[in-house]
Amino acid sequence: MKAGQQQTKASGRPHRRTNAARKPILRRPRGLKTRQAILQKAVNLASLEGLEGLTIGKLASSLRISKSGLFAHFGSKEDLQCAVVEAAREIFVERVVRPANEFRGLKRLRDLCENWLSYGEGKVFPGGCFFSAASLEFDDRPGRVRDRIVELMKKWLENLEYAARDAQLAGEIKKEVDVRQLAFEIQALAMGANWSSRLFRDPSAFRLIRGAILQRIEQATRLAQSRE
Amino acid sequence: MKAGQQQTKASGRPHRRTNAARKPILRRPRGLKTRQAILQKAVNLASLEGLEGLTIGKLASSLRISKSGLFAHFGSKEDLQCAVVEAAREIFVERVVRPANEFRGLKRLRDLCENWLSYGEGKVFPGGCFFSAASLEFDDRPGRVRDRIVELMKKWLENLEYAARDAQLAGEIKKEVDVRQLAFEIQALAMGANWSSRLFRDPSAFRLIRGAILQRIEQATRLAQSRE
Repeated sequence: MKAGQQQTKASGRPHRRTNAARKPILRRPRGLKTRQAILQKAVNLASLEGLEGLTIGKLASSLRISKSGLFAHFGSKEDLQCAVVEAAREIFVERVVRPANEFRGLKRLRDLCENWLSYGEGKVFPGGCFFSAASLEFDDRPGRVRDRIVELMKKWLENLEYAARDAQLAGEIKKEVDVRQLAFEIQALAMGANWSSRLFRDPSAFRLIRGAILQRIEQATRLAQSRE
Repeated sequence: MKAGQQQTKASGRPHRRTNAARKPILRRPRGLKTRQAILQKAVNLASLEGLEGLTIGKLASSLRISKSGLFAHFGSKEDLQCAVVEAAREIFVERVVRPANEFRGLKRLRDLCENWLSYGEGKVFPGGCFFSAASLEFDDRPGRVRDRIVELMKKWLENLEYAARDAQLAGEIKKEVDVRQLAFEIQALAMGANWSSRLFRDPSAFRLIRGAILQRIEQATRLAQSRE
């Protein structure tokens, strides 16, 4: 019942069940594995065409499965968008955050930066960094999707900041450095690389910004190191 | 008229034309002045909801004018989008580039940065920097709109780079600085301020990044000045 209600909300029209009978190639997706496969496709589509442009109809057509099958997984467009954000988060954590967990302080900060740049450069999402695009797309769209993106972006900035603070406590970064500001500048530079790479199809964007970020970190550490 | 626009936007429903005895309130837009007024509205709408979400129907409804009247000005959605990009460019040039034309070298570089930050902070476009959003929205949408955005963003980066190169030739910026890289880092930081201000509703974003940009420029000049 819920799926039907949500469907009406998302499309603005009642669902036409007769379509399913007319199209024998449509399949009903089943189980968790199918859900993951759907979300992988949805994340890729959203990274290319935007999260707002991702409709249940478009996704169903792209996967050649029935809309009703998709509604069994995602009750509304907003539910689908939220699920896509979670799927993208999982990929981001896997590629960028988790590999740095074995390090602390300055090594962790550098590793987080390297992982982010590899994630951007390696086109983990075909349309570039999912969260750079989604955060600019949803900054003026109040609701659950925006709230979640804000939460995740804050968490990510905190990840950089905490690593820098750890490094500062360990004497690796000089005391007078504002580590929140440092984290923010790193993130701005990384997003700039993503922007240039996507817009200008510039293959050198990530290499240039990798140098700029490492230099920025080096400036924050130089004095502390020279005092040792 | 403004109240009517707000109502349509707030309710998320199209304006009900039946309210006013069929269609006596519909007006045909006339002349250049009307075109400019339409484009101003369109630029503001696009800065909030994205350039791709801007349709002739939505804009007509928001302005309470007829779609046919809008078609007289803009033959297609793509023509409308291109006209909106030009209108946004004109505003950007007026607010950011032109005031710096009286300066050269380092002073010009600093003035371009200050003007950009004031333009972002002052909400010249209600949805934040029009070009930051549009370039991430169109990076995967080939066509005339994308081509023009790429051209304009390149021009803007060149503006920063040429000012820095002038400063370098005048001995204000040290010789070993890669001025193209410097221009790019400035732009990345400025877009980061826009991102943080829009996403986190962070009122300190522009102030913090103003400091970071001026510091970055200062680093590029320090040695050159100390050699004088």
